Amino acid sequence: MYSSLWLNYTKLTLSDEKEKRLSDILSDVFFIGCDPENRICKSIKNEIDTAFSTIFDRKINIEFSDEDRETGLSLKIVSKEKLGDEGYRIKTSEEGFVIEANEYNGLLYGAFRFIEMLRLGKLTEEVNIIKTPDNPLRMLNHWDNMTGDIERGYSGNSFFFEDNEMIINDRTVMYARAVASVGINAVVINNVNVKGEASYLISERHYENMRKLSEIFADYGIKLFVSVNYALPMEYGLDSADPLDERVIVWWNNKCKEVHENIPLLGGFLVKADSEGRPGPFTYQRTQADGANMLARAIAPYGGLIIWRCFVYNCKQDWRDEKTDRARAGYDYFRDLDGKFERNVILQIKNGPMDFQVREPVSPLFGGMEHTNQMLEVQIAQEYTGQQRHVCYLIPWFKEVLTFNTHMKEASVADIVSGRVMGNKNAGMAAVCNTGNDYNWTGHDLAGANLYGFGRLSFDTSLPAEDIASEWARLYLASAVGEKSFENINGKTVVDTVTDILMRSWPAYEKYNAPLGIGWMCVPNIHYGPDVDGYEYSPWGTYHKADHNAIGRDRTESGTGFVSQYRKENADMYSSPETCPEELLLFFHRLPYNYVLKSGRTIIQHIYDTHFEGAEEVLKMYEAWKSLKGLISDDVYERAASRFEHQVEHSKEWRDVINSYFFRKTGIKDDKGRDLY
Amino acid sequence: MYSSLWLNYTKLTLSDEKEKRLSDILSDVFFIGCDPENRICKSIKNEIDTAFSTIFDRKINIEFSDEDRETGLSLKIVSKEKLGDEGYRIKTSEEGFVIEANEYNGLLYGAFRFIEMLRLGKLTEEVNIIKTPDNPLRMLNHWDNMTGDIERGYSGNSFFFEDNEMIINDRTVMYARAVASVGINAVVINNVNVKGEASYLISERHYENMRKLSEIFADYGIKLFVSVNYALPMEYGLDSADPLDERVIVWWNNKCKEVHENIPLLGGFLVKADSEGRPGPFTYQRTQADGANMLARAIAPYGGLIIWRCFVYNCKQDWRDEKTDRARAGYDYFRDLDGKFERNVILQIKNGPMDFQVREPVSPLFGGMEHTNQMLEVQIAQEYTGQQRHVCYLIPWFKEVLTFNTHMKEASVADIVSGRVMGNKNAGMAAVCNTGNDYNWTGHDLAGANLYGFGRLSFDTSLPAEDIASEWARLYLASAVGEKSFENINGKTVVDTVTDILMRSWPAYEKYNAPLGIGWMCVPNIHYGPDVDGYEYSPWGTYHKADHNAIGRDRTESGTGFVSQYRKENADMYSSPETCPEELLLFFHRLPYNYVLKSGRTIIQHIYDTHFEGAEEVLKMYEAWKSLKGLISDDVYERAASRFEHQVEHSKEWRDVINSYFFRKTGIKDDKGRDLY
Repeated sequence: MYSSLWLNYTKLTLSDEKEKRLSDILSDVFFIGCDPENRICKSIKNEIDTAFSTIFDRKINIEFSDEDRETGLSLKIVSKEKLGDEGYRIKTSEEGFVIEANEYNGLLYGAFRFIEMLRLGKLTEEVNIIKTPDNPLRMLNHWDNMTGDIERGYSGNSFFFEDNEMIINDRTVMYARAVASVGINAVVINNVNVKGEASYLISERHYENMRKLSEIFADYGIKLFVSVNYALPMEYGLDSADPLDERVIVWWNNKCKEVHENIPLLGGFLVKADSEGRPGPFTYQRTQADGANMLARAIAPYGGLIIWRCFVYNCKQDWRDEKTDRARAGYDYFRDLDGKFERNVILQIKNGPMDFQVREPVSPLFGGMEHTNQMLEVQIAQEYTGQQRHVCYLIPWFKEVLTFNTHMKEASVADIVSGRVMGNKNAGMAAVCNTGNDYNWTGHDLAGANLYGFGRLSFDTSLPAEDIASEWARLYLASAVGEKSFENINGKTVVDTVTDILMRSWPAYEKYNAPLGIGWMCVPNIHYGPDVDGYEYSPWGTYHKADHNAIGRDRTESGTGFVSQYRKENADMYSSPETCPEELLLFFHRLPYNYVLKSGRTIIQHIYDTHFEGAEEVLKMYEAWKSLKGLISDDVYERAASRFEHQVEHSKEWRDVINSYFFRKTGIKDDKGRDLY
Repeated sequence: MYSSLWLNYTKLTLSDEKEKRLSDILSDVFFIGCDPENRICKSIKNEIDTAFSTIFDRKINIEFSDEDRETGLSLKIVSKEKLGDEGYRIKTSEEGFVIEANEYNGLLYGAFRFIEMLRLGKLTEEVNIIKTPDNPLRMLNHWDNMTGDIERGYSGNSFFFEDNEMIINDRTVMYARAVASVGINAVVINNVNVKGEASYLISERHYENMRKLSEIFADYGIKLFVSVNYALPMEYGLDSADPLDERVIVWWNNKCKEVHENIPLLGGFLVKADSEGRPGPFTYQRTQADGANMLARAIAPYGGLIIWRCFVYNCKQDWRDEKTDRARAGYDYFRDLDGKFERNVILQIKNGPMDFQVREPVSPLFGGMEHTNQMLEVQIAQEYTGQQRHVCYLIPWFKEVLTFNTHMKEASVADIVSGRVMGNKNAGMAAVCNTGNDYNWTGHDLAGANLYGFGRLSFDTSLPAEDIASEWARLYLASAVGEKSFENINGKTVVDTVTDILMRSWPAYEKYNAPLGIGWMCVPNIHYGPDVDGYEYSPWGTYHKADHNAIGRDRTESGTGFVSQYRKENADMYSSPETCPEELLLFFHRLPYNYVLKSGRTIIQHIYDTHFEGAEEVLKMYEAWKSLKGLISDDVYERAASRFEHQVEHSKEWRDVINSYFFRKTGIKDDKGRDLY
C-alpha cells in the first residue's frame, strides 16, 4: 500500500462553465508526429488517459496523427532548437492546447506539467510557456542497502531491495511516474557505501532485474545509475584496485562491456571513494582523478558517466589539533585536479564543506574549479534536519545555495552546475533521497514537499520556494480534501496554511538547533536530538570549541585559513565579523559570548532568544496544522499531527539542552528571566 | 579452542627433594567413605587424576575404601558439624594429607584447593585448614542471549547459546570445572533481559538440553538457574501477568511443576521486573513483593529459589527535575516491603544505588532491611570499568563494599549477605559474569583475575585482594612460563609484577574516570570512552550538574535527601563534606571548584592532577607488563600488550577530554601548566 503522492488525480470541480469548457476541449487528444511504439510516448498516453478520465470522470479520445489539429489537446514532436533535448512548450491554439517538444522526454515533462496546471487551475486562455530544464542531470541518490534497510532512511525500508534481492512491482512504476513528473531524469538506486550483495548489482546475479528496472525507468525518461564499490576487482580475486594497474584497467574495461551488454540503458556509476573508510585510489598513492578517469575511460564507449563524490576528508582527526580543518578537505583534495578529469566524469559536491548541516557556507569548490564538470549534492533525507519527524522544508535553503555568487566570473552555484558557465552538458543537481516503503513514502507527509520540491527546483532553479510549496500542497491535498476539489470549500485556506507551515519550518529548525552556523550539536552517529558536546571530543573534525568565554572556530587567515579557499570577494566578506553573514558567524569566527550582533543582542542572548523562539514557532506551526482538522483527510491529518506532537516536545528539548549548556558554561542569565536549567 | 584458565596443570618442578617427597606421598589417593557412583565424587576423582598425573608426570593409584589410611592423600566423607554443607578441612596426617568434608561439595572444594596449594607450593609439613564458605550462594549471572550475543559482553559470543539453541560440549565441562574450583555453586545462564527464544528455555523446546546442562553443573556442585520473563504467561496466551490473578497463579504453579519434572536439578529463577522496560507487578498496581511471592510459592514445593533484582527505577526522568533522585529508587521501592517476602525469595541488590560505576556508595538497602534475604550483586563484566580492554581488577572494590559498616547492628555488608546477621541461608553474592567464547574466556587475559577473584572472595570474604591476585597470577601463568614451573626462573618476579599491575589498576581507572564519585561521564548506551555530558541531559537520572562554578549533586537533607536512607551514623558521615569520604564527595555534595580537599588541593586541581596521574599509571602498568616479555608465553604477552597499547591511548583520551571539559567550563588553568585543550 502506498499513496500516489502529488499524482493523486481526483475529479475536478471548477465553476461549471469553466469545467465544461475544459472538459469539452480535452475530450480529444492528438499525438502528432509521435511514434506510438516509443516507450515514453506510451507513458505519456497512459498518463493523460489516467489523468483526464479521472479529472473529468469520463473516457477521452486519443489519436495518433501526422497532421496538426486546431481543437483538443495536441502533443507534438517538433524540431525547435530552443526546446533542446528536454524542453517543452505549452501554448493555447485556436480551440485547444498544444504541447511541443523535440524529444519524448520534453513531451513527457510538458504533459505532466499540463496536467498539473489543469489541476492547479492555471490553464488560462492565453498560455504560452517555454521551459527547458536548467540542469542537464536531475538526479536522486538513494542510500538503500540490498538488505532492505536504508542508510539515513526515515520512511521505512527500501522499495528497491529486500533480503539481497531487487524488488520490481507496481510501486516501482508509481515511483518512476512521480519523480519523472517533476523532472527527475537520473536515479541511483543503492547506497554509496556499497556493502555486501550490492557489490554484485552489476553481475550476472542481478542483470536481469537491473535491465527490467532500467526499462521501467526509461519509460519515464529516467536513467538508472548504480553506486559501485571502488575495490570491486578485488572482490573478484584481483589483489589490487590500483587505477594505474593494467590488470585493473582491463578488468574494468571488461566489466563495463559486460554491463553494457546486459543493461544497455544504464547511465553510469556513482562512486564514494577514499571517504569514511571506503576504498579508493589513495590506497595506491594515486589521485582522485586517476581513480575517476580509469573508470570513466572504461565506461565511455557506452556513453556512461562517472559521478565521483568529493566528500573526502580525514575522519580520524585528533580533536586537540587546532590546525586541521575538515572544512578545508574537499578543496584541498580536489582543487588542484581542476581540468584533469575525463569529460564523462562529474564531481558531485555537497552544498557545504561539512555535511548537510542546517546551515553551512557554500562549498568553496564551487567557484574554485573552472574546467571540471560539477554537480551539486543536497540532501532531502533529513539526516541532520529532523529526520522526517520534524517538519523542515529545505527548498528555501537550496535556493540560497543556488543563488550564492561564487565570484568566479560572477557565476552563481546554479550557473555552474547548470553548465551555463563552462558550456558543459555533464552537470546538474543530485539529492540524497528521503523515500522509503512507508505508505506516504516520506514518513512525514510534509516531507513530500522536499521530494516534489527538489525535482521542480532542479528543473527550474528560478522557481520561488514558496510557489513550489504552495503547488505541492494543492496537488497533494487534492485528495486530502476528499471528494471536494482544491478550489472548493476552504481550499485556499488549507493550501496557504500548509505553505506557511512549510516556509516557516527551516528557519524554525535552524533557530532551535546549533547557533550561528557552528553546527554539529547533535547526538553522534544517529544525528538526532541535541548533544552539544557530542562531536566535540571526537575524531570527526566537527568542533565548536565553546569555553567559558567564547565559541566558534577561527577560519580566517589567522585561524585555519579556510576562508582563502573562496574567491577574494567572498574571502573578504567572511574574513571580518562585520561583513560575515551573521547566520555563519561562528562558522568563521571565534567570538566572546558578549559580542554584540547587528540586532543589538549579545551572542549569548541571541542563543537564548532564538532557541525560545524556535520552540515557540513549532507550537505555532502545530496550532496551524490543527486548524486543518476536518478540512483535510483524517489520515494525513493524524499522521502529521502525531509527528507535530513529538516535534513540539523535541524542540523544547533542543531549546533547553542548548540553552542550559551555555547557561551552565557562561554563567550568564537570560535577560528575559526565562527558565534555564 | 579455549584456555584452561587457572586450571592449566603443568609439571611441577620444585627442589628435587621436595618434589620427590610430594610425588611419593601423592602417588596413592584414597577415597574413604565415599560413594564411587556419586556424580561429584566422580568429578573429584577425575580432577585429581588429571592434576596429579600432569603435575608429577606419572600415573597415580586411586582406591575407594572404608578404612582410614595413614599415607598418601585421603579424601574422607565425615560428619563434623563445623564443616557444614560445603566446608572442608585439609590437614597433614602421619605420612600424607587428609581432606575431609561432610558433603561432596565440600570435598570437591577441598580437593580443588589442595591441588591449588600444591601448585602454589603451599603444601607444608603442618597444614591444618578448616574452611567453610562465607556465603551460602556464590553465583554467576550470565547475560547471554540465545541468539549468541552477550549483553555487556566483551569476550566474544556466548558459549551457552547460538542461533537460539543451547550449546553443550567439552567447553561446558571446562567452564563448570573452572568456576567450581573457586567455589561457585550457582549459575544463571541467560540474560536478565529475557528476549525472544529465551522465554522458552523453560519449555519443551529446551528441556532436554537444560536437563543435560543441569547435570553437568551438578557434577561440579553447581545449581543451574534461569532468568525468566515475568510476563511469560502472556506469551502463552493469558491476557494478564497480574500476580494476584488466580489464572496467573495457576499457570505458574503448573509451569513450575512441569519445569521440576523436566529439570529436577534446577535451582530457581532470576527475575528483572519493572526495570528498564521489563514487565512486572507494577503494571497491575501490585508490589514487588506480590510479584516475587507469587513465583516463590509456585516454585517452593520443588525447593526452588526466586532471585528478585532490586534494580527498579524511573528510567524516563526529566533531567530538569531537581527533586527526583535515581539513587533513592531501590530503597524507596523495597524498604517498606522488608519482611514481606517469602523465605525462598532473595533480593539481589547491586553494590551501589546507581549502576556499577567505578565508585559509588554502598546501596542503603544493605542495612535498611532486617527481615529480608539479601544478595549482593557485583559486576565483573567491566561494563563501566574498561570493558576488558582496560585492566581493572575489581576485587579491592568489592572488598570495600563487603567491609562497609551499615550500622544496622554494626553489621558489614558481608555480615548481611552471608546470612550471619539474620541467620538466613538464602543469601550470598552474585556477579554479572565477564566470560565469552574468546580463547582466553575474558577478552583481556588479566580480566581472568576478576572471574577467579570473585569466586574466591565469595567463598571467603576475608581474603586479601592482593593474595587473590597473586595466587591467580601464579596459577594462570604457570603455563605462561612454559615448561618451567612458577618457582623456576623469574617466577616470583612475574607473579609480583602481575599482582602489582592488578592492584594498581582499579585506582588508576578511577583516577582517569569521572571524579570524586560523581560517575556517568561515559558515552551513552555503549558505556565506553569519555563523554562528560553524555548522560547529562538524558532521561536516565544520572547527572553531575557541572556549571561554571560548581559540580555535584546535593543528596543531603537540603538536597534530594538520599543520605537519610542510611543509618544515622552513615547519614551523618555523608551529610557533611568534612566527614564524607572524599572519593564520594561529589556524589553527596554540590561544591565549588575551588573547594579545598584534605590534600590541600582544590577540586579543580584534584581533577587535573588525578587525570594526569591516572594516565601516567597506565603507562607504568604497561611498562611493567613489557618487562615480562619472554618470561611468559608469547600468546598471553601479546594479547595483553595489544590491549595495553589501547589503554595507554584511551586513558589519555579520558584524561584530555575530562580535563579539557572542566578547563573550558571553569576557565581555571592547571597550576602545573600542563596541556589542556
